[in-house]
Amino acid sequence: MKVVIIGGGAGGLSTASNIRKYDKQAEITVITMDENIAYSPCAIPYVLCGEVECFDDIIMHQPEDYLDRDITVITQAEVYEVRSSENKIKYHSNDEVEHELPYDFLVIATGGVPFIPPVVGTKLEGVFTILTIQDGFEIKKWAENSKRAVVVGAGLIGLEMAYGLKKMGLKVTVTEMQTQIVPRSLDPNMAQIVQEYLEEEGIEVILGKAIEKIIGEETVEGAVFGEEPVNAELLIMATGVRPETKLAKIAGCEMGQWAILVNEKMRTSVPNIYAVGDCVEVLDAITGHTTQSPLGSAAVRQAKIAAKNITGIDAEFRPVLNAMVSKIGDLEFGAVGLTKAAATRNDLEVVFGQKRALTKARYYPGAKRIDVKMICNLKGRIIGCQIIAKEKVAERVDTMALAIAKEVTCFELANMEFSYAPPLSMVIDPIILAAENACEKLKQVTGG
Amino acid sequence: MKVVIIGGGAGGLSTASNIRKYDKQAEITVITMDENIAYSPCAIPYVLCGEVECFDDIIMHQPEDYLDRDITVITQAEVYEVRSSENKIKYHSNDEVEHELPYDFLVIATGGVPFIPPVVGTKLEGVFTILTIQDGFEIKKWAENSKRAVVVGAGLIGLEMAYGLKKMGLKVTVTEMQTQIVPRSLDPNMAQIVQEYLEEEGIEVILGKAIEKIIGEETVEGAVFGEEPVNAELLIMATGVRPETKLAKIAGCEMGQWAILVNEKMRTSVPNIYAVGDCVEVLDAITGHTTQSPLGSAAVRQAKIAAKNITGIDAEFRPVLNAMVSKIGDLEFGAVGLTKAAATRNDLEVVFGQKRALTKARYYPGAKRIDVKMICNLKGRIIGCQIIAKEKVAERVDTMALAIAKEVTCFELANMEFSYAPPLSMVIDPIILAAENACEKLKQVTGG
Repeated sequence: MKVVIIGGGAGGLSTASNIRKYDKQAEITVITMDENIAYSPCAIPYVLCGEVECFDDIIMHQPEDYLDRDITVITQAEVYEVRSSENKIKYHSNDEVEHELPYDFLVIATGGVPFIPPVVGTKLEGVFTILTIQDGFEIKKWAENSKRAVVVGAGLIGLEMAYGLKKMGLKVTVTEMQTQIVPRSLDPNMAQIVQEYLEEEGIEVILGKAIEKIIGEETVEGAVFGEEPVNAELLIMATGVRPETKLAKIAGCEMGQWAILVNEKMRTSVPNIYAVGDCVEVLDAITGHTTQSPLGSAAVRQAKIAAKNITGIDAEFRPVLNAMVSKIGDLEFGAVGLTKAAATRNDLEVVFGQKRALTKARYYPGAKRIDVKMICNLKGRIIGCQIIAKEKVAERVDTMALAIAKEVTCFELANMEFSYAPPLSMVIDPIILAAENACEKLKQVTGG
Repeated sequence: MKVVIIGGGAGGLSTASNIRKYDKQAEITVITMDENIAYSPCAIPYVLCGEVECFDDIIMHQPEDYLDRDITVITQAEVYEVRSSENKIKYHSNDEVEHELPYDFLVIATGGVPFIPPVVGTKLEGVFTILTIQDGFEIKKWAENSKRAVVVGAGLIGLEMAYGLKKMGLKVTVTEMQTQIVPRSLDPNMAQIVQEYLEEEGIEVILGKAIEKIIGEETVEGAVFGEEPVNAELLIMATGVRPETKLAKIAGCEMGQWAILVNEKMRTSVPNIYAVGDCVEVLDAITGHTTQSPLGSAAVRQAKIAAKNITGIDAEFRPVLNAMVSKIGDLEFGAVGLTKAAATRNDLEVVFGQKRALTKARYYPGAKRIDVKMICNLKGRIIGCQIIAKEKVAERVDTMALAIAKEVTCFELANMEFSYAPPLSMVIDPIILAAENACEKLKQVTGG
């Protein structure tokens, strides 16, 4: 069995490794345009802020490492043709030579491309997008000779990069078109807590203003947001990523609303072509609508499902909860399921429980403030949760992911048995306190 | 409505607070033999080891604080009579005066008393049990003039006290009758990891030897375990706690196999007498058998259920999972559900998944080793989990508590969506890796 995988990111390489796990004989080839593979793009901001020492640290494998597992990795090569009727692809290698490669199964893991708003000046030197480790490397080099930076877009990567640049000593402004930061994952009142932390750390935040233009001759000198000018020698466009679907279209794969359409086996409309990662669309577990889940963790889970199905093991990818977490400085924030705002947009009637509590017994030195917001439908079923604290957020998000996946209600959760020790938790966990608050709100609403 | 509560620990005071929450009119009286109330006995070891500065810090309220909530707290008073036919109790106050108090509802929250093995020497000075804050205070004072300590019993409190004494500068030996430490919560291979940590910290561990006698004239000089003598000027009997059921028996409440029998509403066999905390027995969620769950967190949850039912709100206490967690030095360990050993004792056929992984992305500075062991029945249903690491254990135990409560299988968990960020987690969580391992083991066993 010959498997060709296009893309050397988390989705592509995990598919390769998993196929090898289930099939010792398969001929597996991974083709990527990138020079590096098997690195963690999510970690780029942490190199900037100095928590991770250098970019080399976040590269986990070299292409030749995969030879040990009998996986061929071809870097700096671009696939330009997929002939699905003939089961073969064509690519240019590094040296411009054209090659042809037959396949029994093709996996499209082409990821995404940064979306750049249509304004003047995006080609100026000092304007960056952030996708590959090379981008990270170049941003860092440019930042070393800059004093002021502006990051356009206050999503996760935007905020993480902003903090990294601030730690490098730059004066940093983050701008966001919407009227709050992290609009996809946090409700306004929770986003406010993160924003206050950023401001305490000296990062300026401008909300509700779209970028109008970028100013500069050869290199960037600033940008205008609404009518507000911001000076900067470095500008990062963290304005989102669009799925890279070009090859899938060439191959004749059907597109969905947002990206490549796949079924629960991660198979495209072309029977022996699979697709995984940021280039596919998935189902939202709560709304049932198609959505994008551009997270490394989603790509890795999809890769496992694709690999199983390719090797004849039945497996299905479940609709997503969009569990996410981030760490900026010493603040952690995470979310799973729908925000209240997203629920409302989807015409779901909801209540929310909210609680500010502590991460340890209240007399315990080092106990940190923790904020939990829990969204429930009118039957009490939990459909979303947002958590912010200076520790212990990620695992609580995971607990809530499980709660949402298992359709737990706030009534059940309020009576759940959790562990307790004074140095590690409160005797009643903040999650449970938020669930109790949701129960009370629900009784008020339903009069029950 | 008059409510009398006997006991000023977590169970008694939480019942009082919760009743007040649901009923603004009730006359609530709490009677306790202790001088202090509303303190956290679980935190005593952390005062010894210096993480919490002093015993006053772990006392959260004074009796007079409860007057704000119109709750009368009578300390240093002993209830010696319960006349359930007349709905009244009698108690001696501090000044030896006899009092009578009528009730509409009585709550027995008398907790436990330390079990002391029947050996010679238990009355010597320098021999302590550990139950109240006063015990903690006296142990600390005695320890300040001691060089060597022996702790009999390697359960949670025993190990935590041993570490506290070690941090105070004493040479410390912990002894355990069974052939492993923490036999209730950990399997031998997991207990071994904790034991190695204790030994690295300089604590001597003697296993598989019961205490034969305590040596000394007026003050303790040592003890003999099996035939092995250990010198010590301080000896702590951490050999377990027995439920205090004396008053419940006087009241005519039916006893179960281990302690006071209560129904799921926390009501005893006497209709207007409830009981909560270490003095009651509960149902084990996995085996369905009666068990004890002597945890502060269980007492608090029971208190809420009792308070609701007393005030006319229907509520049921669920069978317990015995979710626990402890922190010794910088090592955290926790467990929930059954150990493999306990499952086998209960004639359950099981497999286990086990994984050693990391708490963050592997390139991330400060990533800690984490060990997860997951027990599943032959249908894959998770019935127990044990986790050890130097961070991020408690919340994972809670996730697993929810998984066990919701009857999640290792197959489901292996495909669960969790959050990911390099500074906070691995892209595939250690819990999920352990679940995957359990799936593989299960396939081997069932041939599936």
